[in-house]
Amino acid sequence: MNPRYLAITGGVGGAKLCVGLARLLGPDQLSFLVNTGDDFEHLGLHVSPDIDTLTYALADLSNPETGWGRRDESWHFIETLRGLGGEGWFNLGDRDLALHVLRSQWLRAGIGLAEVTDRLRKAHGIAHAILPMSDDPVRTEVHTHAGTLAFQHYFVRERCAPAVTGFSFAGAESATLNVQARAWLADPTLAGVIVCPSNPFVSIDPILAIPGLRAALRDCPAPVVAVSPIVAGLAIKGPTAKMMEELRVPQTAVAVASHYEDILDGFVLDAQDEALIPALAARDLPAIATPSVMVTLDDKTALARTTLAFIHSLYAP
Amino acid sequence: MNPRYLAITGGVGGAKLCVGLARLLGPDQLSFLVNTGDDFEHLGLHVSPDIDTLTYALADLSNPETGWGRRDESWHFIETLRGLGGEGWFNLGDRDLALHVLRSQWLRAGIGLAEVTDRLRKAHGIAHAILPMSDDPVRTEVHTHAGTLAFQHYFVRERCAPAVTGFSFAGAESATLNVQARAWLADPTLAGVIVCPSNPFVSIDPILAIPGLRAALRDCPAPVVAVSPIVAGLAIKGPTAKMMEELRVPQTAVAVASHYEDILDGFVLDAQDEALIPALAARDLPAIATPSVMVTLDDKTALARTTLAFIHSLYAP
Repeated sequence: MNPRYLAITGGVGGAKLCVGLARLLGPDQLSFLVNTGDDFEHLGLHVSPDIDTLTYALADLSNPETGWGRRDESWHFIETLRGLGGEGWFNLGDRDLALHVLRSQWLRAGIGLAEVTDRLRKAHGIAHAILPMSDDPVRTEVHTHAGTLAFQHYFVRERCAPAVTGFSFAGAESATLNVQARAWLADPTLAGVIVCPSNPFVSIDPILAIPGLRAALRDCPAPVVAVSPIVAGLAIKGPTAKMMEELRVPQTAVAVASHYEDILDGFVLDAQDEALIPALAARDLPAIATPSVMVTLDDKTALARTTLAFIHSLYAP
Repeated sequence: MNPRYLAITGGVGGAKLCVGLARLLGPDQLSFLVNTGDDFEHLGLHVSPDIDTLTYALADLSNPETGWGRRDESWHFIETLRGLGGEGWFNLGDRDLALHVLRSQWLRAGIGLAEVTDRLRKAHGIAHAILPMSDDPVRTEVHTHAGTLAFQHYFVRERCAPAVTGFSFAGAESATLNVQARAWLADPTLAGVIVCPSNPFVSIDPILAIPGLRAALRDCPAPVVAVSPIVAGLAIKGPTAKMMEELRVPQTAVAVASHYEDILDGFVLDAQDEALIPALAARDLPAIATPSVMVTLDDKTALARTTLAFIHSLYAP
């Protein structure tokens, strides 16, 4: 059997590393465990933003300008909907809509999210398994100075403006971890787990909130390695750094490593943050520094290759 | 109070006359009672083809080439859906989809079809009330030599190919007539009812199947006048003539008049069928012949004007 890897990922940043990993590892060696805490019902449709982002990234359909949705998109549906007085704050492209309509139709027919996601990734010609963290609904709630907001209301409608004070993941305590992810984590061929450079608070923490996952990550013999989403004190994309400031956490890669400390065996930070390695070593956390800002496909593949090599260096089965 | 008129209508042909009537009569004088027997759930959306056809016709958004849907339409959604393996046999345009998504969202929230339809016609800037025949689901079933088919499966998916043997309207026996239509029919200011040139079997009969409507039409003092959808033995649009042949009914305007005989006080047929007037007179049914093929807006208005004048000539309150 080939060694197996599980990548834990959220939105755009994580999906970039996943694309790189998928270039290096076959579908028998790599699966993706994806956040569904920002899923929501909108206009009667079930939208799974992080699954969609990964699906489009792996199918090479991502919109490079927006960072979300499909490329070569048109907007006739949402423009018409707005004109009719419908809720238009969440942009849904005409082509993108096909995925949401199909998913919603299948879910309403009683098919679980894992099976629906598997059908949709296959329909997109994707070889690797995309595993929603759970078939059970988990909903990220953002606590802010302006009150508690459903994730998409915070993220899209309010454009991350309200200062955050914390997060909760409604439904997580009774959610069941994706069966295939659980099996991979318990499999003796597991060679590594990659926590992708996604937002720790709203992309990775909802996944880690599924009962049993933290323990499985702590207990598995394979190394668990995170890639920092913070580079030189800034987030490449999204509100991670802003949230850290509002939560009075230092906006550094070290703070991200601390956030995951109980599950990590290694940490990958950006070459610009190489000076932070001793601070991590002082906490007994092996770390490497490497260019981690992914623009081109080569960037993604290079970071994936470096991360896998780092995992190999840590692994003594 | 102004005299009031109720137009009973189905799809494309009926909607043309409705547009003409709406040019002559204000919203306090004219309402439309519309077939919902061909409504269906598709891709998790509630589609109301006849309401949509009338809505787009009155909003001057109809697609003149297809006869259904909106003009200036794009098809990115349905093309993508087909590519993902979704059911693509029923064409839904990107702009058209906004209406179905909004309607479905509101219906799912527990709002009745009459209220939903009223919101949507207002959102389209339509002054006249569009009344679905009932808020209760009624589904036209087409009995054919190939078995019984749901209406849209017969009409769109099978392109009306199977020979019909009859029709049924599931749910009609327990459906309640639209409240506003019932009120207008009982109102002393009612001056006329127009049965539009729609398919008698699958557009008008489902409406007439709602309990109490036939009796209300027979009992109301105002004249009930139908406009023939059959001209010189042919249907202007749709499968009416084909159905008549398969049902072994003569493909004539007289056969249409006979079909409605118990409710009619007058009949409008095409100028090409003027020779049929004596046959109708022999059945005690007053009739007039006038150009009824509606291509331009002037055609629609002229037929509406002639029909209303005919109603006035019949009316002796």
